[in-house]
Amino acid sequence: MKIVQLSGGVGGGRLARGFAALPDIDLTVVVNVGDDADNHGLSICPDLDTVVYTLAGVEGPEGWGRADDTFTLNTELARFGVDNTFRLGDRDLALKLFRTTALRAGTPLSKVTEDVATSFGIRAEVTPVTDDRVRTMVRIGDGWVTFQEYFVTRRHQDEVADLRFEGAQSATPAPGVLEAIAEADGLVIGPSNPPLSIWPILAVPGVREAVSAHPRVTAVSPLVGGKSVRGPADRVLISLGLGSGNEGVANSYSGLIHRLVIDETDRNQAAEIPDIEVVVTSTMIADAGEAARLAQLLVAA
Amino acid sequence: MKIVQLSGGVGGGRLARGFAALPDIDLTVVVNVGDDADNHGLSICPDLDTVVYTLAGVEGPEGWGRADDTFTLNTELARFGVDNTFRLGDRDLALKLFRTTALRAGTPLSKVTEDVATSFGIRAEVTPVTDDRVRTMVRIGDGWVTFQEYFVTRRHQDEVADLRFEGAQSATPAPGVLEAIAEADGLVIGPSNPPLSIWPILAVPGVREAVSAHPRVTAVSPLVGGKSVRGPADRVLISLGLGSGNEGVANSYSGLIHRLVIDETDRNQAAEIPDIEVVVTSTMIADAGEAARLAQLLVAA
Repeated sequence: MKIVQLSGGVGGGRLARGFAALPDIDLTVVVNVGDDADNHGLSICPDLDTVVYTLAGVEGPEGWGRADDTFTLNTELARFGVDNTFRLGDRDLALKLFRTTALRAGTPLSKVTEDVATSFGIRAEVTPVTDDRVRTMVRIGDGWVTFQEYFVTRRHQDEVADLRFEGAQSATPAPGVLEAIAEADGLVIGPSNPPLSIWPILAVPGVREAVSAHPRVTAVSPLVGGKSVRGPADRVLISLGLGSGNEGVANSYSGLIHRLVIDETDRNQAAEIPDIEVVVTSTMIADAGEAARLAQLLVAA
Repeated sequence: MKIVQLSGGVGGGRLARGFAALPDIDLTVVVNVGDDADNHGLSICPDLDTVVYTLAGVEGPEGWGRADDTFTLNTELARFGVDNTFRLGDRDLALKLFRTTALRAGTPLSKVTEDVATSFGIRAEVTPVTDDRVRTMVRIGDGWVTFQEYFVTRRHQDEVADLRFEGAQSATPAPGVLEAIAEADGLVIGPSNPPLSIWPILAVPGVREAVSAHPRVTAVSPLVGGKSVRGPADRVLISLGLGSGNEGVANSYSGLIHRLVIDETDRNQAAEIPDIEVVVTSTMIADAGEAARLAQLLVAA
């Protein structure tokens, strides 16, 4: 059975781990690149790396970065007066350095990602939505800032007034992405931040159309008890005028999804979501067993 | 008193530490860049970094790299199938990463080096001989290889048939280098490999002329007991036809130096060196006290 999952970072990676644990699933994870950045001249792809690390079971304790990592290089950088608040571990930096060199040599990001996934023994296909440069820009009070400025430097405290995805209009889907979506038996949008992590995927020409054309699209809500499990999704949905709670999630995917999976703590919100099927279950998937259970439910239903 | 020292890596750095320990010395260390390389896309300047680390007292146990360094990133690189035999420590990599970013932003190498030296609390001036790219190429049996290929990958086992310094002819001395040499009360060539570490310095247009014009140039031999303390200097002098032992060293600096300091174990070679003053003393300067003693002798005599 072919499953394609659209994914941001931590939540998406955890659901992908659930699919990967099931037998007879041919999984393709199409990952957001809008958060990508250059830091100290290195190629930073937060969502791709989180998905790869999570599928490999080597993710850090907070979901991103590597387990058992050290921060020797990052700490030493402070000596030179450079901003090292974007903390990168030594093991994690090896991947960044490898990718930076490969990209400079002309290897497409999708090929580098495939090689990286293979080097971690991952059987699922993990691919950036595009090999082209897409950068999520966030409008906050004073003007537009990069995603990393908004999220890391300013700790996602600002109200998000608008989003744009620089470069998306002229980007091309990575090889195989549209085909994978078209051929998928199940198309799943992971429990990621809809505007910040999934919209930049949909913004790549052809992707939104491919998703709309799919007969069976399920989104997993990133909210539990009406709030984001991590990050600012709940607040962003409201500040962008999409509405609060899972109504906001459903609105963010308007015309795209046939089914929304919400957490059992938000059972009372089911009635507020018109036109699509709502599935109520536990969406807490921090451990691999819970993730596999949710993935099984998505595959079966 | 103004001292200018021409320097390769470990031996040169140790002598520089000796000068830096003396009172009232205004020291400028002009450093070889012919060994520089790009490794994993990072700017590697082996001699500059060794001199800086040694002057800062944070050099590694074998003279290069950082003390108490870890190799987490380097080890992890192997996962991606890249050659990580050029071992770089995590602390050491912080400097490489900082420099790479600064160079890409257009900062000249001499300015980056000045900032790095300052960040380590170094009072001496440490400068690359040039901000331009110079690469030492080594002819071995099969053809020409880079210095790093010869030295690191092939462990300097090949006979060196010829040298060339790519880029040197069109290079310009770094700001202040020619002036420092002209104004130096003492000009010292450190106990570095003459053809491999000092010739690339002299190959930058204007430098050889400035050194020739100086009235008091002293070289410290890198040989002890007729052999290099480290590296292949003794063999390279022979294979390039310069002669064995300190006669080879003197020939390698023909027309440039007025005085050669040789180790007491090579006392019997003094008679074989015509035309220049020969000073016999201990040149073993692995510890800072020995280095200061030798520096004092060079300053006094």
